[in-house]
Amino acid sequence: MSAEPPFVPETSVLAVASHVVSGNVGNKIAVFALQSMGCDVSAINTVQFMSYGLSIICSNASVKRKGNHTGYKQWKGTRVSAQEITDLWEGLKQSYLDDFDMMLSGYVPGAAAVEAVGNIGKELKHKSKDQKPGSFFWVLDPVMGDNGRLYVAEDVVPAYKNLIQYADLILPNQFEAELLSGVKITDFASLENAVRVLHRDFGVPHIVITSVSLPTLGSSPSPQTTRTMSVVGSTMTSDRHPRLFKITFPVFECYFSGTGDMFAALMVARMREAVTNYDKHSNGNGSLVGKLSWLSPDDVDALDLPLTRAAEKVLASMHEVLDRTCASLTAEMAEKQKDKDLDEKTLHLLKSRASELKLARNLGSLRNPKVEYRAEKM
Amino acid sequence: MSAEPPFVPETSVLAVASHVVSGNVGNKIAVFALQSMGCDVSAINTVQFMSYGLSIICSNASVKRKGNHTGYKQWKGTRVSAQEITDLWEGLKQSYLDDFDMMLSGYVPGAAAVEAVGNIGKELKHKSKDQKPGSFFWVLDPVMGDNGRLYVAEDVVPAYKNLIQYADLILPNQFEAELLSGVKITDFASLENAVRVLHRDFGVPHIVITSVSLPTLGSSPSPQTTRTMSVVGSTMTSDRHPRLFKITFPVFECYFSGTGDMFAALMVARMREAVTNYDKHSNGNGSLVGKLSWLSPDDVDALDLPLTRAAEKVLASMHEVLDRTCASLTAEMAEKQKDKDLDEKTLHLLKSRASELKLARNLGSLRNPKVEYRAEKM
Repeated sequence: MSAEPPFVPETSVLAVASHVVSGNVGNKIAVFALQSMGCDVSAINTVQFMSYGLSIICSNASVKRKGNHTGYKQWKGTRVSAQEITDLWEGLKQSYLDDFDMMLSGYVPGAAAVEAVGNIGKELKHKSKDQKPGSFFWVLDPVMGDNGRLYVAEDVVPAYKNLIQYADLILPNQFEAELLSGVKITDFASLENAVRVLHRDFGVPHIVITSVSLPTLGSSPSPQTTRTMSVVGSTMTSDRHPRLFKITFPVFECYFSGTGDMFAALMVARMREAVTNYDKHSNGNGSLVGKLSWLSPDDVDALDLPLTRAAEKVLASMHEVLDRTCASLTAEMAEKQKDKDLDEKTLHLLKSRASELKLARNLGSLRNPKVEYRAEKM
Repeated sequence: MSAEPPFVPETSVLAVASHVVSGNVGNKIAVFALQSMGCDVSAINTVQFMSYGLSIICSNASVKRKGNHTGYKQWKGTRVSAQEITDLWEGLKQSYLDDFDMMLSGYVPGAAAVEAVGNIGKELKHKSKDQKPGSFFWVLDPVMGDNGRLYVAEDVVPAYKNLIQYADLILPNQFEAELLSGVKITDFASLENAVRVLHRDFGVPHIVITSVSLPTLGSSPSPQTTRTMSVVGSTMTSDRHPRLFKITFPVFECYFSGTGDMFAALMVARMREAVTNYDKHSNGNGSLVGKLSWLSPDDVDALDLPLTRAAEKVLASMHEVLDRTCASLTAEMAEKQKDKDLDEKTLHLLKSRASELKLARNLGSLRNPKVEYRAEKM
């Protein structure tokens, strides 16, 4: 038997997000990514969609593409109401199944459901604060929109603004970071300011902005060269100052769906791994795992944060999986179009399907990616 | 990057079964097991239960324990109706997402829903027969009851009797094999007769009876020795005669839940693998993959069937995962009971939780198990 040891210590994760019948997005992708890293996952599915894809060319979308529910331009399915989310949670509690080390919350339909999910996070956080600080860590992906466009109801925005103070790590894209902080991000200074506001005014300990596209951050406007994007992260100091890093990576000129969900799930597992590794090498200089929100001491540099280590590995996995998906997608579409005169709708649907991340066939890329793109200071 | 190659060729599987929020049963276990073997899985969830466990001591339950919905003695959740199953399927078709190589159908609530799922299987089967025989394979787990007790409505039994003629492989337990064949299984002769009826009268090509407990089949009645059980399988010949084999294995004296779902999912992947391997080594003597129901030529011995190879590997994985689950369960319960005076209900709930298969932490056992228990002729 050739069992690789799991990366993380026993980790029980509650994942709340959409479920789809077909396609690797929402909880479907998150649950598999978490399990493949050795986490024990309980999933509350906020939506059972027939499919939930995406179809915008990923020129500026290689890390985060979580929203376009109409990727397949059609869907059938049932929403799970706020009350049902609460019922499922009460059921878990009654059965003593509420003993979670981490929580990942993703796409939630509507403000009432966001609040219902928020109540779960708050309750778990409160319990851990009292009993054992650091024993619970909440990763919140505030799915609201992208590229200047909301794809949730407007009242979801204030619902998230009320909630993020309870989260340990948030994963907004550039547009969502603007919505939450109230700061329009146009250059390095405004980007830093947005992060500062999220740390200072909301007290969010860890932030990763998952898709930053600013000319000064490494994006090359020339069509001749490979375009790049950046992920920007920060773990606050004890007086809530940012410790900023960025990781810049090339953009695939390919369609993808579910990348945001994959990014979020891997961040959960890699954050746990990084904090555990930090403790192992700290030579007894205090444990992060036992500290509220796993906050690194103030003398830890931006490039040495567990958050930085985690983000590097996650991006390495993303890069390998996207690379392979892009290759098989090109082959698949060529095959489908062979000898066939497909209409636009059919072509669109086939492309949406082909854009789904090839996770199950790339387990090695999830578990043992080669880190090529390193974090830099900003 | 240390990527192990996937075991199966690109395989797209439609999995229809229950979903649970917590616990490794139903589609939750099936989807992960299939994905970990490299399959691309689309899942239709027939039930979103809060939990769905099991709590009968597994003295005669080490392979199959799929039914007891009241394992946690309480649940909250929503059933997905027959109409919704049909809607989800129509949605998949409209989006060109109905291109499946295999289907796994498990627990389905009620006769109408069984029919709805059956219509999906029939349609896929029909399409493949016309276009490309062998390009679709349906594994049907006729979940109805166990140990002489039905845990579905009575009209589910005739619904399955009407349906199994369309399946390629069915996975009844001993009781379900009796219900379907109308033959009471009390000894070797009646067991063989039940399999004969299923092949001859229903035309089911492949059968695995997942938990056979007969004294003559290796079960030891003495409490001093390790008790055993058997899995009994057969692939019919072209004139519908059985080719029987059995695999006998020791029984863990431990609680488990979800073993039936794990068994079924692994059978899907391992059957695909075994048939692919058969073709690789057949030296051009015809391909099984291109034959309706992947039926081996008549001169293939019971012990050389792809079904036999598949069942051996599946049982090897089961044995390793159950062994590890049993060990961690014992440790977990000892920990929980330490310093605490737990009431019966709490104890029961904790045991149910601890009985969940430890899949995510035993990926190696799923992918590369050591085959210890070999098939024998009957």
